[in-house]
Amino acid sequence: MADPRFKGVIPPVVVPLDENRQLDLEALDRSINRMIDAGVDGLFFLGSSGEVAFLTDAQRYHVLQEGVAMVRGRVPVFAGIIDLETLRVIDQAKRAAAYGVDALVATAPFYALGGPRETERHFRAIRESTDLPLFAYDLPVCVHTKLDPTMLVRLGRDGVLQGVKDSSGDDIQFRWLVLENEDAGHPLTLLTGHEVVVDGAYLSGADGSVPGLGNVDPASYVEQWRAYQAGDWKRVKEIQDRLARLMSITRRVQATVGFGAGVGAFKTALWQMGVFNTNQMREPVQPLVGDDVAEIVAVLKEAGLIDENAAIRE
Amino acid sequence: MADPRFKGVIPPVVVPLDENRQLDLEALDRSINRMIDAGVDGLFFLGSSGEVAFLTDAQRYHVLQEGVAMVRGRVPVFAGIIDLETLRVIDQAKRAAAYGVDALVATAPFYALGGPRETERHFRAIRESTDLPLFAYDLPVCVHTKLDPTMLVRLGRDGVLQGVKDSSGDDIQFRWLVLENEDAGHPLTLLTGHEVVVDGAYLSGADGSVPGLGNVDPASYVEQWRAYQAGDWKRVKEIQDRLARLMSITRRVQATVGFGAGVGAFKTALWQMGVFNTNQMREPVQPLVGDDVAEIVAVLKEAGLIDENAAIRE
Amino acid sequence: MADPRFKGVIPPVVVPLDENRQLDLEALDRSINRMIDAGVDGLFFLGSSGEVAFLTDAQRYHVLQEGVAMVRGRVPVFAGIIDLETLRVIDQAKRAAAYGVDALVATAPFYALGGPRETERHFRAIRESTDLPLFAYDLPVCVHTKLDPTMLVRLGRDGVLQGVKDSSGDDIQFRWLVLENEDAGHPLTLLTGHEVVVDGAYLSGADGSVPGLGNVDPASYVEQWRAYQAGDWKRVKEIQDRLARLMSITRRVQATVGFGAGVGAFKTALWQMGVFNTNQMREPVQPLVGDDVAEIVAVLKEAGLIDENAAIRE
Amino acid sequence: MADPRFKGVIPPVVVPLDENRQLDLEALDRSINRMIDAGVDGLFFLGSSGEVAFLTDAQRYHVLQEGVAMVRGRVPVFAGIIDLETLRVIDQAKRAAAYGVDALVATAPFYALGGPRETERHFRAIRESTDLPLFAYDLPVCVHTKLDPTMLVRLGRDGVLQGVKDSSGDDIQFRWLVLENEDAGHPLTLLTGHEVVVDGAYLSGADGSVPGLGNVDPASYVEQWRAYQAGDWKRVKEIQDRLARLMSITRRVQATVGFGAGVGAFKTALWQMGVFNTNQMREPVQPLVGDDVAEIVAVLKEAGLIDENAAIRE
Repeated sequence: MADPRFKGVIPPVVVPLDENRQLDLEALDRSINRMIDAGVDGLFFLGSSGEVAFLTDAQRYHVLQEGVAMVRGRVPVFAGIIDLETLRVIDQAKRAAAYGVDALVATAPFYALGGPRETERHFRAIRESTDLPLFAYDLPVCVHTKLDPTMLVRLGRDGVLQGVKDSSGDDIQFRWLVLENEDAGHPLTLLTGHEVVVDGAYLSGADGSVPGLGNVDPASYVEQWRAYQAGDWKRVKEIQDRLARLMSITRRVQATVGFGAGVGAFKTALWQMGVFNTNQMREPVQPLVGDDVAEIVAVLKEAGLIDENAAIRE
Repeated sequence: MADPRFKGVIPPVVVPLDENRQLDLEALDRSINRMIDAGVDGLFFLGSSGEVAFLTDAQRYHVLQEGVAMVRGRVPVFAGIIDLETLRVIDQAKRAAAYGVDALVATAPFYALGGPRETERHFRAIRESTDLPLFAYDLPVCVHTKLDPTMLVRLGRDGVLQGVKDSSGDDIQFRWLVLENEDAGHPLTLLTGHEVVVDGAYLSGADGSVPGLGNVDPASYVEQWRAYQAGDWKRVKEIQDRLARLMSITRRVQATVGFGAGVGAFKTALWQMGVFNTNQMREPVQPLVGDDVAEIVAVLKEAGLIDENAAIRE
Repeated sequence: MADPRFKGVIPPVVVPLDENRQLDLEALDRSINRMIDAGVDGLFFLGSSGEVAFLTDAQRYHVLQEGVAMVRGRVPVFAGIIDLETLRVIDQAKRAAAYGVDALVATAPFYALGGPRETERHFRAIRESTDLPLFAYDLPVCVHTKLDPTMLVRLGRDGVLQGVKDSSGDDIQFRWLVLENEDAGHPLTLLTGHEVVVDGAYLSGADGSVPGLGNVDPASYVEQWRAYQAGDWKRVKEIQDRLARLMSITRRVQATVGFGAGVGAFKTALWQMGVFNTNQMREPVQPLVGDDVAEIVAVLKEAGLIDENAAIRE
Repeated sequence: MADPRFKGVIPPVVVPLDENRQLDLEALDRSINRMIDAGVDGLFFLGSSGEVAFLTDAQRYHVLQEGVAMVRGRVPVFAGIIDLETLRVIDQAKRAAAYGVDALVATAPFYALGGPRETERHFRAIRESTDLPLFAYDLPVCVHTKLDPTMLVRLGRDGVLQGVKDSSGDDIQFRWLVLENEDAGHPLTLLTGHEVVVDGAYLSGADGSVPGLGNVDPASYVEQWRAYQAGDWKRVKEIQDRLARLMSITRRVQATVGFGAGVGAFKTALWQMGVFNTNQMREPVQPLVGDDVAEIVAVLKEAGLIDENAAIRE
């Protein structure tokens, strides 16, 4: 029942800035083409890694307009419609739809406290306002609500949701989600957002992945997906081990925590690899400097993503 | 050092809707006048109780435009500029400023994970974008970051912040905030957001309160403030006990939890008291019905806010 | 209805160790006498501040045996019976009772996950096993369950509980607890465990306090209690401000967090004041050293608890 | 480097009670033999599923004495030494060692608040007191501290720890633990405690599993382990799907939450399957009844663990 267009490796697009912290279109185009050329199956704009929380509405829709144009229909485009509560999310949905995206991605409502009644009604109300495929984004670390598998599958069966991007970090509930979805005839496309254990999610039955680290090494995630399709679990795991080691670029950061360390490391890697022109971040986050950059470069060299003899870019 | 205009009882304005869930201007005007006539010292629009999370930008600024006009300068107007991260909050600040408000109220950044570096930079960046007095809104239950007293006082000394609305539920850290603020020459106006223990906050040294329940019984909060100014602690406590009992309108709700129970109970009380015309809520929250309404009416009758023989409005 | 013996200032006894990390009876006797001479109304052994979590059973009952003997019936003795789940707590209750204590103090069950059914049954099962007065210890920071005021008052009315030591940090729920207890005829003695805002708890209607900082400055807490009994709120607050400033001995610690900073600071203060002979801690906690000690001494000098010209003890 | 005896399927032993809530030796012997006959590689007594939190010390060591005797050296015996802080855990270690167990399992210290310094010192202090192999039990849901992979591997390299039982629910950090352990020469035996995604843990590189559900269906976990050893990932996953469905016995419980639902469901299943004579639980937990039992039986019939036509035992 799930839409066959939505599957495989769908990186959340990390957005490059220039020295003045403005959108760097040249670098964005380069990064998008690099991922599509590597064989990714979709691109997700305005996700957490895409700085959706940090962008004004004008900046969000600038990214979307340019991103859709750069993709040129080669792969499906997902757009995050991230805002606090239902009416604000519906506003985002209407605007995003106008840019010709292929699917929308919404979290549970956040900020105001609610319960399961409000969460379920939230997704139903969004569905009443749009005809686009809708993915629930399960992201308790940001929105502080875990989406219940049984509710998700019910919303799938009712045509409210077409998929789930699971970034919950809860592999047990993801397994239940997969099994309940299967029992219901697979109405939902199930994507994992955890770049470090994509292999385990595939073994659980995921239909694809949304790896932030896929901006840095898209080819490995694509190769892993193909090995999974071929049933070559030994290779799936080997690639995952490589990618889990590469993910240590985010673990070595000392200057800060959270987004500034995570996406900060991705941007720094892409900058050092020559894909981005800077590692600038949006306020209030500051770019990584000094030892943090050096540590990231060391990991990239171990992974073969930067030449062993290359100097650190400044 | 703190601005003498900002003190006393400053209720967060609960916003009435009509049967179609549209802003009910007649009821809003009635409720605002009722609070000002009772002697409140300010009004806070677009706070959590003011449904800020649930309103589109257009709806937010409709409330602000009408609210400022209805207040007619009789008391200072505070405006919440609640959004995810810094640039979005600055956008809200610029728009709110255009409506002639007297002060802005911003939370810590939320959604994306960060640390103390990002939180402090966030407030400094907002200050760089506006000349209006700025209050930090300490609301960990919604934004999942507790603001550190020492950081707040540093921002006060540096002219970044002019005050704090403390809804942290942490009376120990509030005491430290008061003492550090005093040692620094009182740069910050310190307001408590906890309607149930305003007396304790006054004893700690608060400069005022922002009680959501003040929409329901503004006169009692005003009388309590005046008793505090007169040093009559016995009376301050008696009134608080009355108000803490009245707050049980929010505790008896069975249908849901969080905002729908809390502000849902305030709206239901105001509706049953004839101040509001309905108890409608914004999506995805549903209005209270049935036994929940009956329980609230029972509490209001005990408190003398509804006549003992009055029928339940339907 | 509540037992009139249980009221006022009841410090949790901090336990001195010698250089070999063994119980220092001489210092314990000195500290106990110092608190009783200052006029405290009871002493609480084997509480969190009394290292109950760190002591083997043999060490626990050594403290209790010596402590009861040193108190010599001058004030009531409370004993913590802290263990994981019900049967283990009942075991502790039986042993503690054998030492002639006046009341027992038990937390909610912890470690295993449960819900309100298990929490309520836990206290009822303890009551079935002992005739001693039983206090519920509301300590969510340690046991990760918040005790519901309505349940506590129901257990009070049923004769299961005789009191509550509230260390929940939730002044709103404490207010509700006080009001529900009052409506039920005051079956429970309500004690606050928060040394920094005892004044607010008294204003809410607390029957007494259990301040860890009372080991360091018992005279001030006793004077505050008497001012409260006399209705002198101005003085109650002044003393609280002094004590809140004194509590900064725990806030200035850099070496560690939690118990090692909190009780570590109390022990260091008592050592520097000459009440204890060392500031030794139980495994795995290490005693404070260096700058942390110097910071504590500076606070004690400001508070007049150490002579301005005294050298730091080593 | 890791001890080759410790690997494979090592169920935590669920303990049967008779109608008087006393240890049921006959049923315990039956259950132990059933698991060993199915081919398990070890048994873990006094874990969370083994009611360690609910047993007095006398009851704990009764279980251990009988359990070791019943096992008769056929497989290695692990013993939980679960208590609050270090000295209490060392006391448990000394007692457990006297019963001839093969390895000890200790959590991070709990109840008192601490930081990483205290956690690391805790394990080092335990090591100083015993020569037995020591496993760290990573169980943040119970002890509210997540063990850091880097610290664990450091303790492995230093000979402090010989293994980890990971019940953290954090598959990302488990992956890092596996990789860091591999880089260090594999000093630690790494066991997963998550019965629902054992396949994913094996793919990550786990050395074995500690599945509570293994009491109910040991043969499937053993078959899964052997399929993993043979590299047959398709079969590993198929069996996991079966077991994940079987685990829904814990998800259908309505009467309570946590341990009472989880281990309560295991006991109810074993009772209905004729392995246990009752489904009695320790205070304050109550056994499942009525619809909860019927739901569990329905799942067991679907799984073929109870005959389709069997009546519900009462």
